[in-house]
Amino acid sequence: MINEIEVIKTKNSKINEVDFSNLKFGSVFSDHMLECDFKDGKWQAPKVVPYAPISLDPAAKIFHYGQSVFEGMKAYKDADGNVLLFRPIDNVKRLNISSKRLAIPEIPENYFMDGLKTLLEVDEAWIPTQDGSSLYIRPFVFASGAGFHASPANEYKFIIATAPSGAYFSGEVRVLIEEKYSRSANGGVGYAKAGGNYAGQFYPTQLAIEKGYQQVIWTDDNTHEYIEEAGAMNIFVRINDTLITGPTSDRILDGITRKSIIELAESENINVEVRPLKVAEVVEAAKNGSLKEMFGAGTAAVISPISGFGYKGDDFELPKLEDTYASFLKKRITDIQTNKVEDPFGWRLQVK
Amino acid sequence: MINEIEVIKTKNSKINEVDFSNLKFGSVFSDHMLECDFKDGKWQAPKVVPYAPISLDPAAKIFHYGQSVFEGMKAYKDADGNVLLFRPIDNVKRLNISSKRLAIPEIPENYFMDGLKTLLEVDEAWIPTQDGSSLYIRPFVFASGAGFHASPANEYKFIIATAPSGAYFSGEVRVLIEEKYSRSANGGVGYAKAGGNYAGQFYPTQLAIEKGYQQVIWTDDNTHEYIEEAGAMNIFVRINDTLITGPTSDRILDGITRKSIIELAESENINVEVRPLKVAEVVEAAKNGSLKEMFGAGTAAVISPISGFGYKGDDFELPKLEDTYASFLKKRITDIQTNKVEDPFGWRLQVK
Repeated sequence: MINEIEVIKTKNSKINEVDFSNLKFGSVFSDHMLECDFKDGKWQAPKVVPYAPISLDPAAKIFHYGQSVFEGMKAYKDADGNVLLFRPIDNVKRLNISSKRLAIPEIPENYFMDGLKTLLEVDEAWIPTQDGSSLYIRPFVFASGAGFHASPANEYKFIIATAPSGAYFSGEVRVLIEEKYSRSANGGVGYAKAGGNYAGQFYPTQLAIEKGYQQVIWTDDNTHEYIEEAGAMNIFVRINDTLITGPTSDRILDGITRKSIIELAESENINVEVRPLKVAEVVEAAKNGSLKEMFGAGTAAVISPISGFGYKGDDFELPKLEDTYASFLKKRITDIQTNKVEDPFGWRLQVK
Repeated sequence: MINEIEVIKTKNSKINEVDFSNLKFGSVFSDHMLECDFKDGKWQAPKVVPYAPISLDPAAKIFHYGQSVFEGMKAYKDADGNVLLFRPIDNVKRLNISSKRLAIPEIPENYFMDGLKTLLEVDEAWIPTQDGSSLYIRPFVFASGAGFHASPANEYKFIIATAPSGAYFSGEVRVLIEEKYSRSANGGVGYAKAGGNYAGQFYPTQLAIEKGYQQVIWTDDNTHEYIEEAGAMNIFVRINDTLITGPTSDRILDGITRKSIIELAESENINVEVRPLKVAEVVEAAKNGSLKEMFGAGTAAVISPISGFGYKGDDFELPKLEDTYASFLKKRITDIQTNKVEDPFGWRLQVK
């Protein structure tokens, strides 16, 4: 089934330097990476090579025109030593959707999947087994071809690197609903996992952090009346017993955790509404006590409960509930991911 | 006046391989570059070093989060061998405005200017003297620090590379007024020269090229009723004898060529209006014959006349005038840049 992928192994494993009981998020990297070059008009054969610096011409277009896309995935190891991925084909497809919008050539799906499987085989020992830990997988594609002309590059690199990781957030997350800055435009690249979408969030997020928040809730750029995303995550709001999230659009990422939560919640008879959500409705619900929960959803943090939010100078606290949708859904989804329960949805893919 | 900049010269100059009479835009690079690293919380001393590949960790944030900004400038050599820059301080200031929005540490102005002057001294022989040619200068800053956490990097590189260049566009430029895609959001990063702003334009531009146009005219993302930019340039429209360009905003780049044209035109008693410009007004003017000219304005192309435009399936031709504002203003501005005429504005800076 797996196409033969060439493997060049490192002679100097760093695995013994890593404290697996005390992992941060995405800051130590496994011994190998998958590398695949686009040149002469096509993707060349992918290879597993030692994780090592990349050498690029100073005129490589990634430095100048931000032509890059990425994905975020996780690999888990269950009690029996099986290696598991979560809906990986959705990541491949989304990477190519992003690539198309950024004028980057699409990756053959088997290059991605066979390459990833081989990489996980080679670096299997890097997959952490501690609760809450996983091997974070970062596939990315960027313009390596050189030139100062503002046009697509003629060469690209597709790389998959991995990082044994602990939790993305530590401590409570308070958010600021943004009134001035915005993340994406109608007709823009907001739905793509394009590098530039993230850099643009850093400064407004820094301003929010200076005010005592951890993340920004993005609103639409035209009116700032509608809630769009939470930092680099999709957002869910629970009013009474209904879970609400905005519809995907050309401004909003089609999150894999987001759609899994919708499906999971519906299968548990939680009422889910996918519809435009006004800031005013959330503020009103906070005031009248019907606002029960808010949480971000994404691969890195899975589900990240929000403890309170700021808006137009006022601060609102979320109630501290015993049984939250957030904790229930997070447990359900991570139990499926880590093979602690049955997977009625067919989301889990065992790769070893 | 110039702080001492360390210079490490190449042992293998490539200058004899370059055909200076047949230069494209930004595709051959001079022997040296300026390099400056931000680490341990500050910008280290800049150095002139041989133009050579840059080595980066695969987790460097430039690859993942598009944290990069750049500038475009040109150096000219006049008949007496003087080396000239055009409003370079404006580029330094704008680079730092862009950096601030992208959460990148700002460069000390003297690191930029002294570094650039030293670089031009070392690579003076690379400045072309043929009419229409110049040494294109590309200062850029990007996140070199590593990590998969979506937050600003802790290390950056500032580089100035140069490329002896001919014209940016060859042949006539027909443009498509965009109805679906857009370049920037209110509250976004459109006013910054951020890498990601450019990658997002490639795909819509490819679609326009497939339809027989060379560039896209960007409209506002909310209504698509207002004209914003032309490809990677600002845009001017001449209706009767009035030159119109949109006001700068958080969506529109504060172009140095743009503001020079406004000042130059006004000094020549050309009526200039800086105001929002509706697509409908341009279409109406094309229909009733009052639309005389459209042109893009930017450092790379200086002034790029537009020969016609498409909008909602219709095509409109611009008249072929004898004496255009575009050619008059382009000659005035390049004559000032290359020291063929007096510079009453104080724009030219002689660096040697």
